[in-house]
Amino acid sequence: MTAGKRVWAIAEGYIPGESNGPAPAMTSHETICVLNTGDEDARIEVTLFFTDREPAGPYREMVPARRTRHIRLNDLETPEPVPRYTDYAMLVRSDRPVVVQHTRLDSRQAENALMTTIAWSE
Amino acid sequence: MTAGKRVWAIAEGYIPGESNGPAPAMTSHETICVLNTGDEDARIEVTLFFTDREPAGPYREMVPARRTRHIRLNDLETPEPVPRYTDYAMLVRSDRPVVVQHTRLDSRQAENALMTTIAWSE
Amino acid sequence: MTAGKRVWAIAEGYIPGESNGPAPAMTSHETICVLNTGDEDARIEVTLFFTDREPAGPYREMVPARRTRHIRLNDLETPEPVPRYTDYAMLVRSDRPVVVQHTRLDSRQAENALMTTIAWSE
Amino acid sequence: MTAGKRVWAIAEGYIPGESNGPAPAMTSHETICVLNTGDEDARIEVTLFFTDREPAGPYREMVPARRTRHIRLNDLETPEPVPRYTDYAMLVRSDRPVVVQHTRLDSRQAENALMTTIAWSE
Repeated sequence: MTAGKRVWAIAEGYIPGESNGPAPAMTSHETICVLNTGDEDARIEVTLFFTDREPAGPYREMVPARRTRHIRLNDLETPEPVPRYTDYAMLVRSDRPVVVQHTRLDSRQAENALMTTIAWSE
Repeated sequence: MTAGKRVWAIAEGYIPGESNGPAPAMTSHETICVLNTGDEDARIEVTLFFTDREPAGPYREMVPARRTRHIRLNDLETPEPVPRYTDYAMLVRSDRPVVVQHTRLDSRQAENALMTTIAWSE
Repeated sequence: MTAGKRVWAIAEGYIPGESNGPAPAMTSHETICVLNTGDEDARIEVTLFFTDREPAGPYREMVPARRTRHIRLNDLETPEPVPRYTDYAMLVRSDRPVVVQHTRLDSRQAENALMTTIAWSE
Repeated sequence: MTAGKRVWAIAEGYIPGESNGPAPAMTSHETICVLNTGDEDARIEVTLFFTDREPAGPYREMVPARRTRHIRLNDLETPEPVPRYTDYAMLVRSDRPVVVQHTRLDSRQAENALMTTIAWSE
């Protein structure tokens, strides 16, 4: 069974520059979780939007059939790293239906805080 | 009155392996909350998706008419336990309309963090 | 302008029985926030669902035209208080379109945790 | 590609009056994040709703083409500041499709708590 949509957006992106606790688990980070329940691999493109410059990307990733990938935005390198201390937003496009969720772990203070939401889909 | 859908997905699953505070309330855990507002019992099947192996399940559960069940993923045993320290995702299918919400309590550090979202529904 | 729907559901309800910090602000609690953007008062009915008993309610509330009400579930008394330490879920019905969001503040440990989601709407 | 809707609502608004940690990053605050993926600037109007008075606004903001703006509600001044310690709710209208997400950082206690949700859209 194939569940999902091909276009997803997250308006709230921000990677804190400080962290407390053992890396990498407790490093302040953001993750785009992509679920591909279908029987064909999904090729996704992530575009990042900023406040005062043109968008970055696309960042190209593959989510195989019947797999999930939790893509840590901190780790993206190509075409450019995601800046810290910077407001951004994300558009995720896929050639197959997928489900996208966004999570932030913020460990700027001694104890971590978490937030998540299913992304908006068209 | 019957509210809901029959297919729900959560892309962000992860059960931390460490906890602080009295068990079981403060143990790091994830929960799928299912609400069946209808007058007929709902049989649900949960399938788990991973990064690098075929899906696990189905895990079969029953949510009686006019009841809610908050299914703790930590406690699932059949067909196999949910691994800790492992990225996963969930597809929930029901034979009756239900509403599904996902929550994580993370107590890896001394103070707990919470996150929740209504699941995505088709 | 009138925004919203008439039926909303939240599957994840739980009021912790312990709290840290000054009451009532930091008392562990859950809130249903209802926004009525329209020009007519909205009469809402909240029904609570449980794991092992018949539903409770309806709890009747009024949200005047062009107003929001943040209804603290801890404070509901009629027809019966909301039990602590108990899994539950909520169905909110309104005679006018409204928008419903659910929030929990959990202060069982020294530092509070927060979670929120827009409710599911039909 | 243009993703989004023109009407968005958030029912849960509240800016705590106390904070811990370095300002402005760790000041208790709420943010409306708006993503405009399109090729035309979006003019948005935010209206605030309260429990016991008529709505405030509109607060007028612009989100340029292919940009995101994370509007901190604490910083709004015209037509009036957003009161602290006060329940409110928000309606966001745009002349172009946008995606809206709401976030609160609560630092009333020593460690911060976070919550977020994609807003409700018509």
